[in-house]
Amino acid sequence: MVGDSVYERQNFGNSVGFGSRPALLIVDFQVGFIDPAVFGGGNIKEAVSNTAFLLAGMREIGAPVAYTRAVFDEEAVDGGTFALKVPGLYRLKESAAISQITPDLAPRSGELVLNKIGPSAFFSTPLISWLSKQSVDTLIITGATTSGCVRASVVDSCSYSFRTIVATDCCGDRAIEPHEANLFDIGQKYADLMTGEEALAKARAAVGRNE
Amino acid sequence: MVGDSVYERQNFGNSVGFGSRPALLIVDFQVGFIDPAVFGGGNIKEAVSNTAFLLAGMREIGAPVAYTRAVFDEEAVDGGTFALKVPGLYRLKESAAISQITPDLAPRSGELVLNKIGPSAFFSTPLISWLSKQSVDTLIITGATTSGCVRASVVDSCSYSFRTIVATDCCGDRAIEPHEANLFDIGQKYADLMTGEEALAKARAAVGRNE
Amino acid sequence: MVGDSVYERQNFGNSVGFGSRPALLIVDFQVGFIDPAVFGGGNIKEAVSNTAFLLAGMREIGAPVAYTRAVFDEEAVDGGTFALKVPGLYRLKESAAISQITPDLAPRSGELVLNKIGPSAFFSTPLISWLSKQSVDTLIITGATTSGCVRASVVDSCSYSFRTIVATDCCGDRAIEPHEANLFDIGQKYADLMTGEEALAKARAAVGRNE
Amino acid sequence: MVGDSVYERQNFGNSVGFGSRPALLIVDFQVGFIDPAVFGGGNIKEAVSNTAFLLAGMREIGAPVAYTRAVFDEEAVDGGTFALKVPGLYRLKESAAISQITPDLAPRSGELVLNKIGPSAFFSTPLISWLSKQSVDTLIITGATTSGCVRASVVDSCSYSFRTIVATDCCGDRAIEPHEANLFDIGQKYADLMTGEEALAKARAAVGRNE
Repeated sequence: MVGDSVYERQNFGNSVGFGSRPALLIVDFQVGFIDPAVFGGGNIKEAVSNTAFLLAGMREIGAPVAYTRAVFDEEAVDGGTFALKVPGLYRLKESAAISQITPDLAPRSGELVLNKIGPSAFFSTPLISWLSKQSVDTLIITGATTSGCVRASVVDSCSYSFRTIVATDCCGDRAIEPHEANLFDIGQKYADLMTGEEALAKARAAVGRNE
Repeated sequence: MVGDSVYERQNFGNSVGFGSRPALLIVDFQVGFIDPAVFGGGNIKEAVSNTAFLLAGMREIGAPVAYTRAVFDEEAVDGGTFALKVPGLYRLKESAAISQITPDLAPRSGELVLNKIGPSAFFSTPLISWLSKQSVDTLIITGATTSGCVRASVVDSCSYSFRTIVATDCCGDRAIEPHEANLFDIGQKYADLMTGEEALAKARAAVGRNE
Repeated sequence: MVGDSVYERQNFGNSVGFGSRPALLIVDFQVGFIDPAVFGGGNIKEAVSNTAFLLAGMREIGAPVAYTRAVFDEEAVDGGTFALKVPGLYRLKESAAISQITPDLAPRSGELVLNKIGPSAFFSTPLISWLSKQSVDTLIITGATTSGCVRASVVDSCSYSFRTIVATDCCGDRAIEPHEANLFDIGQKYADLMTGEEALAKARAAVGRNE
Repeated sequence: MVGDSVYERQNFGNSVGFGSRPALLIVDFQVGFIDPAVFGGGNIKEAVSNTAFLLAGMREIGAPVAYTRAVFDEEAVDGGTFALKVPGLYRLKESAAISQITPDLAPRSGELVLNKIGPSAFFSTPLISWLSKQSVDTLIITGATTSGCVRASVVDSCSYSFRTIVATDCCGDRAIEPHEANLFDIGQKYADLMTGEEALAKARAAVGRNE
């Protein structure tokens, strides 16, 4: 990116490192965010496949796993400004087919599934309490869309001071430029970028050291 | 932007409208975020000038005004992941010259000045309480940087359900592409985009209707 | 109370006043919090009856109404320290009979119903966004228990800077001393105390002035 | 307490246990909250002495230590409902003598000192981020007043899912009944109660096990 040199000169983009208690957060991989006729498109399908691999590995090492779904109540009483900008969000009712997490990533017993009404996985949900309860120190984030709910969740994860890892090939967006532009911002300011495979290797090593 | 058509097809980018109680939030226009040798550069200086015009107008109509400063304690005990990515943030001590709000926008008696340690103006500050106390329904946001603390504050303002207006020519960034890319995301998903002059005209009209 | 004089001397217990946009918050009046065999007892039943009167009046003047329910997921993945202290909370599953709001106060179309996992109605819910969206400035609180989720919600409502009114005869507790002791604290530090009838009269007057 | 039997029958008051990474939070032990002519009185002085002992021990074992101060800005722009109830809070300016932490508990280099404007130590402060950064799982709380800012901080600590310990003889209040009544509520619902000496012994053992 053309602006890279100023970031380098001002010493942005350092690494957050990796702690000893990683968890996985999967943002809004709902049917409607994969289907290009609803909110999907771009590279989201590949991101789901790559997340399936990462998820399997995280389960294997016993790491905590959480999912979010964007869901609004039947009459949209709980919607706000976000749904003014994007009225289609109101179609995401609790029981609608488009609101369900894709079967490729179906949550298992013991995993956390959170409904949310804003962009960030932390806003108006008990995610922070669940992370704190388990002394998680490193949050690996995947999901859709990179320029929307992933980015918002990454910023909050950084603010709450988790070492935050964005698994780049496990995040997708309806258009590629916003995907790339947001990964750039995230890598410079909020989180470390790596592939799902790299993140899993680090998580494996971290959990191994704990044993 | 190439991706525009998918956003249109999926019905993003609608307007949030303008309420009847606007306030102005000026994010991190500190000396160090204007100086290109610290965290500044790009179009930030112009954004300061344009904000000075908007600020004068908002004061004239008696709208509430708040400012944020990124400030860390002397020993950086309060810093977290954000400062791991950008270690230079620790230079922003309370009394350092680079931490002060630019004299061009010097806060006046009765205006709120908040210290913050994360990207968002809402995180770890009483901003939400101050807005709620005054029944603000519309938050006009300016500041630096568009791709950093402005974006994070806009997302939270949207989550808290304020009608959020980003005064595009009153926001600046050290590099132009992230500035543009973030305005695109913001306009599609979180807030309405207009110039400071347009925002002021709308604020003037809203306050006029109240009288 | 014996300690009253020190509170008076130190100038506690002033009034918060009443704004122009009141809303009603009904905390955890679920079947299980009314039934003495689960979490109920004391003066909770009377508090429900008194709330029914207040609710009818608030609906009549078109004020926003919100309800909370304490609800945990099937496997209690979302429970934390609160449920360590009170393990019975885990019986409050989404579809359990004891989790339902009492039919005497059945929510209507257009009213907000929030699930929560902590004591406060604000914690991990979008309540603040819903209040902010409607420019609510005065929050009348009723529910169960006074010494538990009502108190926690009152403290947060005060922190968010709403003028907070506790309708004393519309709040109930499983034992009377904690009910009384908490009303004392609340009246000294966080909210104004009045009966449901008095609160309704003030709400009516406020809404009347708006018209 | 007369109401105890219903709490027992409904299975309240279980233990939260003790984790492996304890920290100490000292709430509002400012000069003005010790002086009976300002906000002090009751058993607050003894609570300070007992906290000094606990603090020395926690420092010895290298546990993280945080302090809060209630502080309002020069013009009280940041004050809200809380200061409507208790207008004297506005005397707590940054540099006022009554705002300073008592010299008996003077913070040391590397310890966190937070200003707050609401009852809870978590509200509008980065406390949660500082705890999360250090993987704290157990929060020992002391301070003034038991029925005010200690109680509010305990409830939030519980909501954030920290194992919360209230050091009973290290908390004080201007009047004894609210002190006792709030310890009762806290012990039944939010935290474990023990003396500072007991809490220190447990912290020592926990840190010992880590080594």
